[in-house]
Amino acid sequence: MTLRVYLSGEIHTDWREQITNGASGLDVSFSGPVTDHAASDDCGVAILGAEADKFWHDRKGAQMNAIRTRKGISDADIVVVRFGEQYKQWNAAFDAGYAAALGKSLIILHGPDHAHALKEVDAAALAVAQEPAQVVDILRYVLSGELP
Amino acid sequence: MTLRVYLSGEIHTDWREQITNGASGLDVSFSGPVTDHAASDDCGVAILGAEADKFWHDRKGAQMNAIRTRKGISDADIVVVRFGEQYKQWNAAFDAGYAAALGKSLIILHGPDHAHALKEVDAAALAVAQEPAQVVDILRYVLSGELP
Amino acid sequence: MTLRVYLSGEIHTDWREQITNGASGLDVSFSGPVTDHAASDDCGVAILGAEADKFWHDRKGAQMNAIRTRKGISDADIVVVRFGEQYKQWNAAFDAGYAAALGKSLIILHGPDHAHALKEVDAAALAVAQEPAQVVDILRYVLSGELP
Amino acid sequence: MTLRVYLSGEIHTDWREQITNGASGLDVSFSGPVTDHAASDDCGVAILGAEADKFWHDRKGAQMNAIRTRKGISDADIVVVRFGEQYKQWNAAFDAGYAAALGKSLIILHGPDHAHALKEVDAAALAVAQEPAQVVDILRYVLSGELP
Amino acid sequence: MTLRVYLSGEIHTDWREQITNGASGLDVSFSGPVTDHAASDDCGVAILGAEADKFWHDRKGAQMNAIRTRKGISDADIVVVRFGEQYKQWNAAFDAGYAAALGKSLIILHGPDHAHALKEVDAAALAVAQEPAQVVDILRYVLSGELP
Amino acid sequence: MTLRVYLSGEIHTDWREQITNGASGLDVSFSGPVTDHAASDDCGVAILGAEADKFWHDRKGAQMNAIRTRKGISDADIVVVRFGEQYKQWNAAFDAGYAAALGKSLIILHGPDHAHALKEVDAAALAVAQEPAQVVDILRYVLSGELP
Amino acid sequence: MTLRVYLSGEIHTDWREQITNGASGLDVSFSGPVTDHAASDDCGVAILGAEADKFWHDRKGAQMNAIRTRKGISDADIVVVRFGEQYKQWNAAFDAGYAAALGKSLIILHGPDHAHALKEVDAAALAVAQEPAQVVDILRYVLSGELP
Amino acid sequence: MTLRVYLSGEIHTDWREQITNGASGLDVSFSGPVTDHAASDDCGVAILGAEADKFWHDRKGAQMNAIRTRKGISDADIVVVRFGEQYKQWNAAFDAGYAAALGKSLIILHGPDHAHALKEVDAAALAVAQEPAQVVDILRYVLSGELP
Repeated sequence: MTLRVYLSGEIHTDWREQITNGASGLDVSFSGPVTDHAASDDCGVAILGAEADKFWHDRKGAQMNAIRTRKGISDADIVVVRFGEQYKQWNAAFDAGYAAALGKSLIILHGPDHAHALKEVDAAALAVAQEPAQVVDILRYVLSGELP
Repeated sequence: MTLRVYLSGEIHTDWREQITNGASGLDVSFSGPVTDHAASDDCGVAILGAEADKFWHDRKGAQMNAIRTRKGISDADIVVVRFGEQYKQWNAAFDAGYAAALGKSLIILHGPDHAHALKEVDAAALAVAQEPAQVVDILRYVLSGELP
Repeated sequence: MTLRVYLSGEIHTDWREQITNGASGLDVSFSGPVTDHAASDDCGVAILGAEADKFWHDRKGAQMNAIRTRKGISDADIVVVRFGEQYKQWNAAFDAGYAAALGKSLIILHGPDHAHALKEVDAAALAVAQEPAQVVDILRYVLSGELP
Repeated sequence: MTLRVYLSGEIHTDWREQITNGASGLDVSFSGPVTDHAASDDCGVAILGAEADKFWHDRKGAQMNAIRTRKGISDADIVVVRFGEQYKQWNAAFDAGYAAALGKSLIILHGPDHAHALKEVDAAALAVAQEPAQVVDILRYVLSGELP
Repeated sequence: MTLRVYLSGEIHTDWREQITNGASGLDVSFSGPVTDHAASDDCGVAILGAEADKFWHDRKGAQMNAIRTRKGISDADIVVVRFGEQYKQWNAAFDAGYAAALGKSLIILHGPDHAHALKEVDAAALAVAQEPAQVVDILRYVLSGELP
Repeated sequence: MTLRVYLSGEIHTDWREQITNGASGLDVSFSGPVTDHAASDDCGVAILGAEADKFWHDRKGAQMNAIRTRKGISDADIVVVRFGEQYKQWNAAFDAGYAAALGKSLIILHGPDHAHALKEVDAAALAVAQEPAQVVDILRYVLSGELP
Repeated sequence: MTLRVYLSGEIHTDWREQITNGASGLDVSFSGPVTDHAASDDCGVAILGAEADKFWHDRKGAQMNAIRTRKGISDADIVVVRFGEQYKQWNAAFDAGYAAALGKSLIILHGPDHAHALKEVDAAALAVAQEPAQVVDILRYVLSGELP
Repeated sequence: MTLRVYLSGEIHTDWREQITNGASGLDVSFSGPVTDHAASDDCGVAILGAEADKFWHDRKGAQMNAIRTRKGISDADIVVVRFGEQYKQWNAAFDAGYAAALGKSLIILHGPDHAHALKEVDAAALAVAQEPAQVVDILRYVLSGELP
């Protein structure tokens, strides 16, 4: 059994590396969004041509990124969504809702301060973790039944 | 043709009343979440019993509210999601993602300051409006072809 | 908004009447299985002819009852599953799994003694109640936002 | 043709080994739940932190196990559900209902004493067997047309 | 609860009338194919123009009839398929397979002589009856729990 | 049985009126796009604000019209697509493909000159007509079995 | 591109071998039912125990065969259904209906004498052939664009 | 991550080669229709026998090509649809609608002259490009996050 795991959300810390490194011996294939913030913001106009209006500049980029995001989520068994300390992160919550509606197993990852604000998102999840290492433990347990 | 419209998101201003009043002559049936903030937070424990741990207090409430939210979104033709000036509003973005995955027609309603942060959400929408009156205009046009 | 509610499970107490009576002023339409135990056991052979083998006697009846059960669950917004104090009640757990896979909102109703044995079933539910009156309270809240 | 088979249900006898050993020469890939009872009960709190309340202790574990169970059932062509002599085994019946709603081919495995109590579950199955060796015979026949 | 029932298959006896008359007091809405054999054969060319080749004459008619058939089956809760004594009746078996794949509750109606030849069709059904009156009894039982 | 019919495509002749008038005694409910060409082109900017770039002017309008189009097609039993003598009419062909993928019964309406160019579209249809009156005849036949 | 092709229907001539041999150089993977008539009839009782009543003898076998049939059809891109000169072959027509409802590409294979009786089945197909060699030609063309 | 890309539409220029050559180092598998115009027009009659009527000649061919087209689009993550300078190209727009309804990521490729006529098709796309090289850039970015 190979688990396909999509890592959505916060892009300013190394949580994805912590998980992929921690799971290096496990039968897991990871995917996720483009995490280069500048490339992610500008991909649309860089490839398809500049826009005078910032709104359409953003639209072009967001739709191009959606090609990757939708495939990653659609192909996944598990979608992990990380909410960091900063920013609105509405795209993370959007991905969580999208994944929930597709029936994916959701793992939400956030610090205790966000618990109340994320209660609807957490309520759709099969696990709510605080640390990337816990996500690794979950993946190991799901694959092998082995506990930490 | 009756349009079924779910009004998701911000609960601290009267935007829902503006839309439902504005659309009073149109063949639209509206639904939405419970907008009494205290009831929405406490419904779980009020009905099913108190919890010592705030996390499970929240979980009970959020899952009870999900009974209403899921039905409202599943039955809707159009899901309008309003992002206000304050708060994290991750449940609003979650609803938008959920509705998008179900193929619902999305209308996103927010002020210009949030445009960049909401670009992934807007990119999944068929219309992005700034004022409730514009949502009414859209509903009227969709039903009758009449422009303001 | 009309809620369609299917009442599955235990047939030896009056919990269905408690719920339907309690919800008499609410916009809810209820359905459920045939609760006449003898009719439910014998319907297949009574209509389609006797069987020498008890296994096929049971099969004929169970499949005939499935016509009603599947329609009730498929049409429902909410499936309430009641586990009583006695019997195996595997059909109740089967209905819960069936409803879960269809994405129905599940409410599980049982006494505290069954909590551990029902943990997988409860984990798929949006509410776990102990008393029929709590189910009525949930239906009222979901419809009107009114708490007890 | 590779058959993907999920082995659900009773975890106190070696019926899974009997089937996987018996099918060792066949093109079948097996999956199943974590069968270490203690690990399965405690996985949630072991990884995500202790709970004071047994109900939430169980919830955390049951939802973590659901990540594995849902993937196993969703990916399967055939779901075999074994009911043993003891315990409530509501999770087994839940899995059977879940698999039935997804249109999986169901094989139910139980002794004759449970036949009446399992009639609704059996009625959703394509085969009802008493012995693990019969399941092996079915898999061989389905793959090769060869009878015992 | 209204049952929507599609009556497929044999068109040379009055079995549809027997069922609709027998069910006259029940909350059932019936649909079925056009049973005027000549109209059914010729509808395509009568409306869309003659064809020199019988194969395309038949194709035009069969596709026009499919507009009605597909709607009737798609909208139905229960599909009853009657196999008579004569003719190939491949369209009846096709309808049964179509309905089975859509998850409809199937009732197959045929005399004992056809039992072996129809075993795959019967195996997908929730009831196999010999007489139209039995179908009426099933509908009454499913709606009311009342046995004959 | 009520047939829900969506009338897609060409907007410069009175073919929709011919069909709706011809079907005035039948149990059919019709829907279709906004057929006021100017309103359809400008609805997006008229309601949501002007665009400097014609491409985004068009995008806003097309997405607003999609709210109506998608609902109409999704709710329909039958989608009639009319190709006129002029213009590219790619939106008509797009609607036909969209409806085909949803499994709707398609009726294509066009003159003989377009037969070769429309062969892929026609091949997905259950009827290909040349005159609006033929569509009326089809609807009458599907509802009543009556031929012209 | 690998085409997965299920070969349903008649089992008394060598048409399957003609197709699989003819397609030996093509990227096609074939599946089909068990074609050993006796094994197919008796598999249920041979594995799961004898039945006194022929009807249940047949039921057990038909349901066991359905495990293979459903997987084969569900996994297929193309379902070829062959109708021979003899027998009722209702299972073939059932498979065709089942495949049609799942949106599979259907190829129907039969002699000219059956054309009228099979018109509803043919009308759901993308190709109607008379000879196995034509099916090979279709598979080659679909894969490579090469005509005979 | 392998991207499966279907290249639909115009067959008179080398745009497919430009994309497949440009993407030669990327993890993409391409598919598309038969691009030999004569073979595509005549495949039906070449394999299944001549037709006197051009309409049915076309029908046979279009349905045979649909076997390939439907598989290619159904299996794809991304559907690229190219509209050239000439011809009606209704099949291209049909494919775009078909892919949109299946939730595929659409990339539309056309010159600026067609922008207004294609506005409904473009509005369903995640990217609108003018040059094949831009499609290559999108595929590279989606796979690797690398911008040109």
